[in-house]
Amino acid sequence: MGDSLEERIAARALRYVVEPPRALDPVVDLASPAELQAIFDQAGSLAFADESLPVDDDTMVDAVDLVIKHSVHTSHPRFINQNFAGPDPVSVVGDWLGAALNTTGATFEAAPVFTLMESAVLSKLGRFAGYVGPGSEQIPTLPPGLFCPGGSTATLYALQLARHRLRPDIKVSGATGEQFTLFVSAAGHYAATKSAALLGLGTNAVVKVAADERGAMIPDALDAAICASKADGQVPFAVIATSGTTVTSAFDDLNALGDISEAHGLWLHVDGCYGGSALFSPTHRHHLDGVERSDSFVWNLHKMMGMTQQCTALLVREPALLADCFALRADYLFQPDKLHAEYDSGDRTFQCARRIDVLKLWLAWKHHGDAGFAARIDHAVAMAEHAARRIQASDGEFVRVTGTFTNVVFGWVPPALRPLDLSPASIGQLTPEVHDALHTLAPRIKGRMQTEGTAMMGFQPIEGLNTFRLLFMNPEVAPSDVDAMLDRVSQYGDELVAAGQP
Amino acid sequence: MGDSLEERIAARALRYVVEPPRALDPVVDLASPAELQAIFDQAGSLAFADESLPVDDDTMVDAVDLVIKHSVHTSHPRFINQNFAGPDPVSVVGDWLGAALNTTGATFEAAPVFTLMESAVLSKLGRFAGYVGPGSEQIPTLPPGLFCPGGSTATLYALQLARHRLRPDIKVSGATGEQFTLFVSAAGHYAATKSAALLGLGTNAVVKVAADERGAMIPDALDAAICASKADGQVPFAVIATSGTTVTSAFDDLNALGDISEAHGLWLHVDGCYGGSALFSPTHRHHLDGVERSDSFVWNLHKMMGMTQQCTALLVREPALLADCFALRADYLFQPDKLHAEYDSGDRTFQCARRIDVLKLWLAWKHHGDAGFAARIDHAVAMAEHAARRIQASDGEFVRVTGTFTNVVFGWVPPALRPLDLSPASIGQLTPEVHDALHTLAPRIKGRMQTEGTAMMGFQPIEGLNTFRLLFMNPEVAPSDVDAMLDRVSQYGDELVAAGQP
Repeated sequence: MGDSLEERIAARALRYVVEPPRALDPVVDLASPAELQAIFDQAGSLAFADESLPVDDDTMVDAVDLVIKHSVHTSHPRFINQNFAGPDPVSVVGDWLGAALNTTGATFEAAPVFTLMESAVLSKLGRFAGYVGPGSEQIPTLPPGLFCPGGSTATLYALQLARHRLRPDIKVSGATGEQFTLFVSAAGHYAATKSAALLGLGTNAVVKVAADERGAMIPDALDAAICASKADGQVPFAVIATSGTTVTSAFDDLNALGDISEAHGLWLHVDGCYGGSALFSPTHRHHLDGVERSDSFVWNLHKMMGMTQQCTALLVREPALLADCFALRADYLFQPDKLHAEYDSGDRTFQCARRIDVLKLWLAWKHHGDAGFAARIDHAVAMAEHAARRIQASDGEFVRVTGTFTNVVFGWVPPALRPLDLSPASIGQLTPEVHDALHTLAPRIKGRMQTEGTAMMGFQPIEGLNTFRLLFMNPEVAPSDVDAMLDRVSQYGDELVAAGQP
Repeated sequence: MGDSLEERIAARALRYVVEPPRALDPVVDLASPAELQAIFDQAGSLAFADESLPVDDDTMVDAVDLVIKHSVHTSHPRFINQNFAGPDPVSVVGDWLGAALNTTGATFEAAPVFTLMESAVLSKLGRFAGYVGPGSEQIPTLPPGLFCPGGSTATLYALQLARHRLRPDIKVSGATGEQFTLFVSAAGHYAATKSAALLGLGTNAVVKVAADERGAMIPDALDAAICASKADGQVPFAVIATSGTTVTSAFDDLNALGDISEAHGLWLHVDGCYGGSALFSPTHRHHLDGVERSDSFVWNLHKMMGMTQQCTALLVREPALLADCFALRADYLFQPDKLHAEYDSGDRTFQCARRIDVLKLWLAWKHHGDAGFAARIDHAVAMAEHAARRIQASDGEFVRVTGTFTNVVFGWVPPALRPLDLSPASIGQLTPEVHDALHTLAPRIKGRMQTEGTAMMGFQPIEGLNTFRLLFMNPEVAPSDVDAMLDRVSQYGDELVAAGQP
């Protein structure tokens, strides 16, 4: 490579992809906001002065090195912190190629290859979701969905589709004051509530249906909630089933929810942002049995599959509804008299310009094949099983709280409190002293991981008690990494207890 | 570089950035959807079979080469087709570094450096927009805005903020059936209408206010429209001023619209998606005089400034309103007890995970400095002036229709029809034969550019007549490129006329 600034930055980015931080390399080199600002003062400044002068190349490169050093290393096998990790290297450079070719996915004219790739990938995803039959290997002019900038946005679009199917006049005339309601598991993602606010339905429109101890919606509770809503004079219009909840990766029973949605004539949307990728694995796709009965399905390939942020597919059973719901036919862009305008995807969605999110997925999928994608899922579940075994064998030091599929939610118990029952139903029985001790330990153990840089692991309240969450998707995670993560919890917990801190 | 698949793809992406297509290289190697599918059959297939097997590396690389060959070359100086062009090379590799470090911008924990960069850049942009005073060089904990995936999404958020300020209860209780109205120039972007549909206001809520011949909103017409809406019992809540319309780059008079919005107590949103970047130039920022009086401002840095798709800043005068409007405080992600949680940006917006859009802008701005950004704008306007002079001197072959700032809208007139008046007011006076001849010529001339690969230039109807649009932002465009673009219109027009085609 040459020595232009762009080549020097590219060289560093590529080195990061080819030789990423591993094993005992830090997961994060933590610095506070004030410390980071002081650190970057060695390379110009993070801030901008009122008059910003050009910075010389050597200083720019110093800044790039600091960016890398102080960013969180999400490809590190000991970053098991949230529902993405371990970007696929082919996806990363596929993203690069898309950025280099910088265009928008709205029209065939500006994105001929990518328009067809979107259609091809959506058709393939649609076959996994059962929206499209096997043998549908031709690239469709009208694909069964579209790409969106993230799962929340896809949920928003799906709910707009659902409202539109029931009350098409609202697109033009606006809401009339009817009280619409939609139904989602109490363990479902908050995108449903954010969408309800944005759609003008109000957060009250979201009825949170009771989930069982694993986090899966209780079908009878859904039916009762819909009936109660109708009895109150409200207008139920959609059910959101969750395939892989955020904390425990619970899967709602799609056949049961399909029966209820069908009986009440409601749109069934499946939030498969996280767990949808189970469909890739012949061993684990049973979690989504019945998905083909839904009306829409959102699938974040940037979560379990390691595509870079973001790569979200919204699949729909009736593709024609997309244009009906979203199209406005802007005449400066969707000129019907230009070449191949029938392939334009931009008027089937809310956005105008769209970043090319499909190329990285197309490349990674072609490279790995279906079997490679399945292997990523199977490996993740195997790591979760290893973690569960290790917790089970810990003689009460670690206690598994809940978790399905790739997720293991657990607590660490100080020696003086062992044995302790931390099943969700028992958490409410803890004395205030024990509850507080455990509750404040988790963020402090996490804080020690960050300041030491040894690992990053998520925590969140279950029944009001902070608990740890391991969730697996990075194929680079080995059993030794799982062991090391648990060892760090143990070590920092012991140290905090010894220091008299809980 | 090594010979792993990711390195081979990266090498090709980098070569494209360092040695992009220029001059007589094709702007596009056009192929129909059917032809593209046949072409890719040499390198596997664009489509996916029901069972997709892994593709070997050499075939993958062949596919990458075909992707590059058949994509539209938006960095080519003769791609003057829409409101983005000429990606900044430092932005491209900044985007790469962000993809390599693959994280989400929602929390300081996962994005410590990028959280501060966002805040620094938003503070600097806020100073250009007059929302933040000079000397505000400290990085704020609560920045005056946020990054969004595109201008339409930012408009959606701004309108939600506007509704929320007027009727905060709707967030919780939902719309009541009041008929809200918002006002935008007839030449404004269709994002306003798409947003109204999504927000449940209905497209009827959008009152399109008459624009003058240049495309700028007529202030008196705005005042009259607001009064008429109130008299009809509707509830006006927002005015969208456009700074740089899509077709003519007209600028609404922000002071006049500010007076009217203030008098009626309405939220003033400025759609500066395209023309907001005029603020970078001391010579041209006068187009946005009065912007500091607005409540929100959307600015697409991926348009004139050449950041890669996408890089959209939504600036707000009252940052605290963002959390008030959007926050739901999901406890698995925005744990108040983790380190530096006060910097978390994710609950101030609709999205959950957000791609890192700021790094590329931070790097490019540090590299170029304010003066470099200003030079990009000044160069673009100089090229528009060159095009206008060339059109003026063409003895009636080209006729300028309209256009401001960087935009030149013009028609090509066949020899037999010269001289012809194509001012917007005169277009309606054309005979049907002349109108049809001109109207059908533009897409066919454009089609010839695409099939020959010599150029890409946009066209759109003005008063129902297809006209060409040149708009400048790519710093690589030289006067000789402008001349060549016009020469191609001339050549293909003459050839089509000679072939008896109009």
